[in-house]
Amino acid sequence: MNASPETLEKAVVLLSGGIDSTTLLFDVSRRAQGVYALSFAYGQKHARELDLARRQARRAGAAEHRVIALDCFGTLTQGASALTDAALPVPDLARMSGAERARPPTYVPNRNMTLLALAAAYAESIGAADVFYGAQRQDAYGYWDCTPEFVRRLNSVLALNTAFPVTVHAPFAGMRKAEVVKIGLELGVAYAHTWSCYRGGETPCGTCPACVERRRAFEECGIDESVKETGPSA
Amino acid sequence: MNASPETLEKAVVLLSGGIDSTTLLFDVSRRAQGVYALSFAYGQKHARELDLARRQARRAGAAEHRVIALDCFGTLTQGASALTDAALPVPDLARMSGAERARPPTYVPNRNMTLLALAAAYAESIGAADVFYGAQRQDAYGYWDCTPEFVRRLNSVLALNTAFPVTVHAPFAGMRKAEVVKIGLELGVAYAHTWSCYRGGETPCGTCPACVERRRAFEECGIDESVKETGPSA
Repeated sequence: MNASPETLEKAVVLLSGGIDSTTLLFDVSRRAQGVYALSFAYGQKHARELDLARRQARRAGAAEHRVIALDCFGTLTQGASALTDAALPVPDLARMSGAERARPPTYVPNRNMTLLALAAAYAESIGAADVFYGAQRQDAYGYWDCTPEFVRRLNSVLALNTAFPVTVHAPFAGMRKAEVVKIGLELGVAYAHTWSCYRGGETPCGTCPACVERRRAFEECGIDESVKETGPSA
Repeated sequence: MNASPETLEKAVVLLSGGIDSTTLLFDVSRRAQGVYALSFAYGQKHARELDLARRQARRAGAAEHRVIALDCFGTLTQGASALTDAALPVPDLARMSGAERARPPTYVPNRNMTLLALAAAYAESIGAADVFYGAQRQDAYGYWDCTPEFVRRLNSVLALNTAFPVTVHAPFAGMRKAEVVKIGLELGVAYAHTWSCYRGGETPCGTCPACVERRRAFEECGIDESVKETGPSA
């Protein structure tokens, strides 16, 4: 899993509050002298993931955790994603057509490059040479901005920085979600306090793509229902 | 000057309110059926440039002009740039050392990638395939994110987008500022209503790098003082 350094000084971790980025947070915390976690409220329906991100950042002993208000992102991409637009329903995975799976309505236009650009700006400003990004292999979807090639090309842009080049690491980008969960279980990640459901209701819907992929990953690891997500107060 | 298409449908133009992006706005307006101008309040001291951006967007007949509050950017990069941090003075060009010129204190960490990522997200959301970026050749400074190579590599990232690939065009990236001004004069750009001064006071300081470069460009074009910048009420 390591395309990233074994020991680190300051490291920035993009933390959504889901399974992958929370696992990465604990993995990097083991190796870095100072972890600077960064979360964004970009207009996502499931903003409750941010409360869980706060809890996980505390538990991981992050040197700092910032939750950044990026309201403008939802405004700029209005009408373009079921993840941010109240008028566009999040589909059930079982009802998604082949075309929808190839180009899912939950895709958010250029969100990942935007958040990584902000993370790199922050990293450069605090003198952190490494940014960690919890993308994992999306078996079922055509998310172009979760791939190793996306990260490689983004790094080729950042490598031009003559002032302070920052490198993005996505050590899970070639892994399936179940493989990420296995790593997290070894690290003692409390998955009950992570959030996946795209619909962001009081309890997870169980049928959206994120819920289904979460359940499958846990099933594959032989983990029972008790690691199903719970609210931040649990 | 054209690495960019001769005729365009919808086009997004990053508009700071300075000479280069304003010239680009009028150049693109001539060729595009709908121009969507985008400006950012990212914590810059010279936010008064945004009032002039509004004025120029109206005059250019932009289909839309959004001024986006990106306060978080100033927060994330606090202490890292004289352009955004009140505690860090903007230097006079004449007093800058060789090291300062190679790595100017007015450089803002990864600002340009951040704004271009947001512009690409917006473009994708409204179905505009082209984003225009007014970078010009910075003779005296080491701005890595104003170069043709930066734009080329950024486009190689965006080209991975399987949903709707957006292309960034920076037709002035190989030009000197005076060459940009020559184009703008042919297009009838009202340079009196653009803003350059980094210090952002009531009147331009005349000695910061942006003021000096502006004056030199106009001098080279044989243009007199009357195109010096004025306030938005002028």
